[in-house]
Amino acid sequence: MKLRTIWNVCMGVAMLGAIQGSEGGVAGGEEAFSRLMPVPQELVAGEGRYRIDKTFTVKVSGNPDERIYAAASRFLRRLDQRTGLFLPQDYVEQGEALEAAGLEIVVSRPGSVTLGEDESYRLTVAEDKVRLEAETDLGTMHGLETLLQLLSADGNGYYFPGASVTDYPRFPWRGLMIDSARHFMPMDMIKRNLDGMAAVKMNVMHWHLTEDQGFRAEIKSYPRLHELGSDGMFYTQEQMREIVAYAADRGIRVYPEFDVPGHATAWLVGHPELASLPGPYEIERGWGIFDPTLDPTNEKVYEVLEAVFTEMAAIFPDEYFHIGGDENEGHHWDKAEHIQAFMKERGIADNHQLQSFFNKRLLVILEKLGKKMVGWDEILQPGMPTDIMIHSWRGRESMVAAAKDGYASILSNGYYIDLMQPASEHYRVDPLPADIDLSEDERARVFGGEATMWSEHVTVETVDSRIWPRTAAIAERLWSDASVRDVEDMYRRLDTIALQLEEHGLTHLKNREMMMRRLANGYDTEPLRVLADVVEPLKIYRRNADLSYRSFSPYTLLPDVAVADAKDARRFRSQVTAYLETGHASDKQAVQGMLERWVANHDGFVRLADRSPALREALPLSEALRDLAALGLASLRGELVEAKAVLARAREPVAKVELQVVDAVERLLAP
Amino acid sequence: MKLRTIWNVCMGVAMLGAIQGSEGGVAGGEEAFSRLMPVPQELVAGEGRYRIDKTFTVKVSGNPDERIYAAASRFLRRLDQRTGLFLPQDYVEQGEALEAAGLEIVVSRPGSVTLGEDESYRLTVAEDKVRLEAETDLGTMHGLETLLQLLSADGNGYYFPGASVTDYPRFPWRGLMIDSARHFMPMDMIKRNLDGMAAVKMNVMHWHLTEDQGFRAEIKSYPRLHELGSDGMFYTQEQMREIVAYAADRGIRVYPEFDVPGHATAWLVGHPELASLPGPYEIERGWGIFDPTLDPTNEKVYEVLEAVFTEMAAIFPDEYFHIGGDENEGHHWDKAEHIQAFMKERGIADNHQLQSFFNKRLLVILEKLGKKMVGWDEILQPGMPTDIMIHSWRGRESMVAAAKDGYASILSNGYYIDLMQPASEHYRVDPLPADIDLSEDERARVFGGEATMWSEHVTVETVDSRIWPRTAAIAERLWSDASVRDVEDMYRRLDTIALQLEEHGLTHLKNREMMMRRLANGYDTEPLRVLADVVEPLKIYRRNADLSYRSFSPYTLLPDVAVADAKDARRFRSQVTAYLETGHASDKQAVQGMLERWVANHDGFVRLADRSPALREALPLSEALRDLAALGLASLRGELVEAKAVLARAREPVAKVELQVVDAVERLLAP
Repeated sequence: MKLRTIWNVCMGVAMLGAIQGSEGGVAGGEEAFSRLMPVPQELVAGEGRYRIDKTFTVKVSGNPDERIYAAASRFLRRLDQRTGLFLPQDYVEQGEALEAAGLEIVVSRPGSVTLGEDESYRLTVAEDKVRLEAETDLGTMHGLETLLQLLSADGNGYYFPGASVTDYPRFPWRGLMIDSARHFMPMDMIKRNLDGMAAVKMNVMHWHLTEDQGFRAEIKSYPRLHELGSDGMFYTQEQMREIVAYAADRGIRVYPEFDVPGHATAWLVGHPELASLPGPYEIERGWGIFDPTLDPTNEKVYEVLEAVFTEMAAIFPDEYFHIGGDENEGHHWDKAEHIQAFMKERGIADNHQLQSFFNKRLLVILEKLGKKMVGWDEILQPGMPTDIMIHSWRGRESMVAAAKDGYASILSNGYYIDLMQPASEHYRVDPLPADIDLSEDERARVFGGEATMWSEHVTVETVDSRIWPRTAAIAERLWSDASVRDVEDMYRRLDTIALQLEEHGLTHLKNREMMMRRLANGYDTEPLRVLADVVEPLKIYRRNADLSYRSFSPYTLLPDVAVADAKDARRFRSQVTAYLETGHASDKQAVQGMLERWVANHDGFVRLADRSPALREALPLSEALRDLAALGLASLRGELVEAKAVLARAREPVAKVELQVVDAVERLLAP
Repeated sequence: MKLRTIWNVCMGVAMLGAIQGSEGGVAGGEEAFSRLMPVPQELVAGEGRYRIDKTFTVKVSGNPDERIYAAASRFLRRLDQRTGLFLPQDYVEQGEALEAAGLEIVVSRPGSVTLGEDESYRLTVAEDKVRLEAETDLGTMHGLETLLQLLSADGNGYYFPGASVTDYPRFPWRGLMIDSARHFMPMDMIKRNLDGMAAVKMNVMHWHLTEDQGFRAEIKSYPRLHELGSDGMFYTQEQMREIVAYAADRGIRVYPEFDVPGHATAWLVGHPELASLPGPYEIERGWGIFDPTLDPTNEKVYEVLEAVFTEMAAIFPDEYFHIGGDENEGHHWDKAEHIQAFMKERGIADNHQLQSFFNKRLLVILEKLGKKMVGWDEILQPGMPTDIMIHSWRGRESMVAAAKDGYASILSNGYYIDLMQPASEHYRVDPLPADIDLSEDERARVFGGEATMWSEHVTVETVDSRIWPRTAAIAERLWSDASVRDVEDMYRRLDTIALQLEEHGLTHLKNREMMMRRLANGYDTEPLRVLADVVEPLKIYRRNADLSYRSFSPYTLLPDVAVADAKDARRFRSQVTAYLETGHASDKQAVQGMLERWVANHDGFVRLADRSPALREALPLSEALRDLAALGLASLRGELVEAKAVLARAREPVAKVELQVVDAVERLLAP
């Protein structure tokens, strides 16, 4: 194979742009190179195109784990579903006697779904053959995703562009935490998100299973935990095993979190005797930090924890086990006389030390079960052994401190996707930026990171639209070279992967349409869509600053239809930038078109809200958008306008969302 | 409460129209009466409106089954999700001390989820209170669905219009058969469709669990059945129990079908010794009628069947049990010498008698288990006792014959929703039309009917769009009075319920959008949508006449995006009718607008197909639509045109779909 162009990711997207430019057509071969997400470590453009026709088959050789056969079969189905070729191979099977397969997968040894396993792969597309080689089947599964992303079309049909890809992850821990506790997430949601994770080469699902609002795991030895602590919404042990197996088939580790001693109200509904203060306790329906706390002085607490951890250890084979440990403010400890007496007796100076005492008891249990303890920042207390792992959520400082003290760590600070920040914010967060003050050894203890989908303000209807596509940007940060950091380029690729992710049944795009249909009460959704495309939900923790939301609140309104990266707002900001830089008439026209659309939209929105009272709270927002857009138009016409009041009003949050085009309009006004 | 108008459904929709007209506004109170589906037996319009505000609560009294509390809680969540009121009640609970509840539910006794249970209810909406009374909680659950359909809005917000509804089903058996065997259907699909069934007051799910293409039930005593017969896609016993409980919570019976002795290839993969001819056998991947058949002369066959039925009887409490029995052509019986010898020895004259012999053995097993046998037409053989039930699929004749012979029966002939006929076809099928030649007693033995979702040509992505909304039309046929039969009115209401059904997670609308996005390869879907909105998949059994489809074929192409009632085709036919009747300029304009749109669409479709090769096979169709529309436009201009070739071409099936606007254009051409 003759090599034509080398694209090394360290050279960034400029080179890629050149390749793309040289090819021209949108459906041209190398265009696919610029769609890859996460960007591979090295891509060498090859000559020619491998044509996919209806005889295309897949063959596996070498010594893989048997999961590769199902993975290759799934690959074939997805390829067939996209191309409509009616491919002949029902299943890729072991020992199949295939003559010339279009794709040959060669694996050296069975992969182990454990931290640090080799996930690298080499993919070569030549005119006559596609070859995917890897040390383990885990690597080849990543390669299959890359190959599907390379699928291209031209006048002659579908093809894979000639290329040679050498790829491997930057970090070994690329995770997504799913909070099934605050809002329960059905099996189907977990499965389709595991598929989505695999599509962007993530390899860890952290399963947050207990909270003040729910205890979601069946515990056979203490069934009152899930029976009374879950409103009947929990995973049976069979179901949890099913998820672990489903994930392992996709090269994804699953490890559970049982958050203790705080965040534990749901444990206490069925077992009030485990609490620091007398019960009874009820499942918490509100959001926030609550006081109910396990009693570290009570031996039964350790009995129950040992029983729970033992049952779960049999289900989750991963060596890591998360015990939470966050946000225990110790108010109930302070109030409990017997706990105060216990502390005094043992010389335990404060609640931090008491929690450390508690954690050390858990450590003994987990060690017996062969598990490594993971906990949030707060578990890092003097005297904890260095074989625990710190999950950093409060800031990078704790991660750095942990690494310096000899602890392994992963980063979630900066990856809190529940905060509804744009993808660009998360994308910029690097667990190990070049200037970090850590030695080589210390850096090696930073394993990677996890996007965290806390579920206060998501339901099964909206959760996918919070996870995707933003999590793909985080996945790229954790897989690709640190030099891959062009935000605009990331957004371009994110738009593509958002569409591809739909084939796993993910609902991030389609549920939004459905929710708008419901919110429009059966009427035309267009005025709602125009508004929804320029607003974003209140960010960080402002959405529930007034404590209006609870478990069963209607998460079906404008802030739930809105997403973290408002589509038209992003487009408009680029248009304004282009216009202000170039002054071109066409750029001006684009800006003007958007502004006119917003002015015109208000009347339609008023009519719609008239028929759908649930939209009425957003009327002032629609009006503010109209006035803002009118301001922009006046400015385009060169009129001097009094802007202050209009801008201020447009910046006011309304109906739990905010307009995302105010700054851009203000830029138009600048003298 | 003063009564203003009485609407008795026997008077048809004319009266209803009058009520509606008197109110005027689209969001006006009584407009909701004309949205109800199925139409209730009696509705009396009341005075005033019950205003729903954020204090709205629900109280249950009387002596219900506890399922009503969960049902009432679900009702509250749906109401809240539509209105965004942030209702205060988390759960409706037994023994709750509520003061003045907005809705009071009064139940006389716990309902039993068995055939013939009282499902009637009385719903009264007054200005100050909503009251829902019923003999059983099953009735009140139907009433809750009616109440949600009555939800209305005006300038003051949400309300229920004053009304008094007395309602009960015409038939006690209103079913949907789901074929989980040919294409496996995940748990989530079953659950959301049970919710959909409940929304339109259906009460039976018939679960087709075995086929040539798959054995989908975990059988503990003979695990090779599901292990080797399912590609790993089966329901565990825990999962089947979960479905039975989920359905019972919604007042829906679930009974299984184990189709024997034909349609049984998947049984034989793990147990070839049960076959009439020696194996080995493989899971069937094609569609059609296949020869592998259980051996009725082999005692082990009855041992296995008894074991299977016994395990299933413990999971499905329903008194009915379906043994299939259809389409056994007996080819393998003819070829098996030992079977021929057996028949000769016993004086069994033909294969019909042999199947009757087989069925009688099954009858003994089922009687021991306390189950009533159900089977397709073919089980009706001389000598079968009259306590079996006939499931009529081949024609109404078998149902009539069964009734005359003293057998109970249900009708599915006419309700085969897999055949992709329009809703109107199914709607016109009445199990007991007025002119049917049956006595009162015989009529009483016709229990109702079942829509049958055979799954050759559906996948989990498309199945909801085949079931819904058409099944709502069948549900109405089986619930409402026989006089409710206005097709246009049905379609109007069907459009509304299609939107409401989305709140159960049903994907009939949203997956279509997703599939178009995939099919358009990420480009603008509009030209595809325009075409898809006037085509329907090939109907009856023509789609696979060339045997091109198999289990793993890509059901992701144009016929899968198309639905049985092409939206724009239906609209266009009405427009043409209106124009030909009135000759009005505005009607002409509507027709002309559609035609112009189709002419203009072709260029866009060509460009799209250029980028998405999977669409290329539809190019001749898009062209035929363009030419057809041009013909219509020429005719509107009064030009004489040569139409024959264009019409003939437009009638040709292309890419497994057909244009549905050819007749309407032809009507425009008539001199």
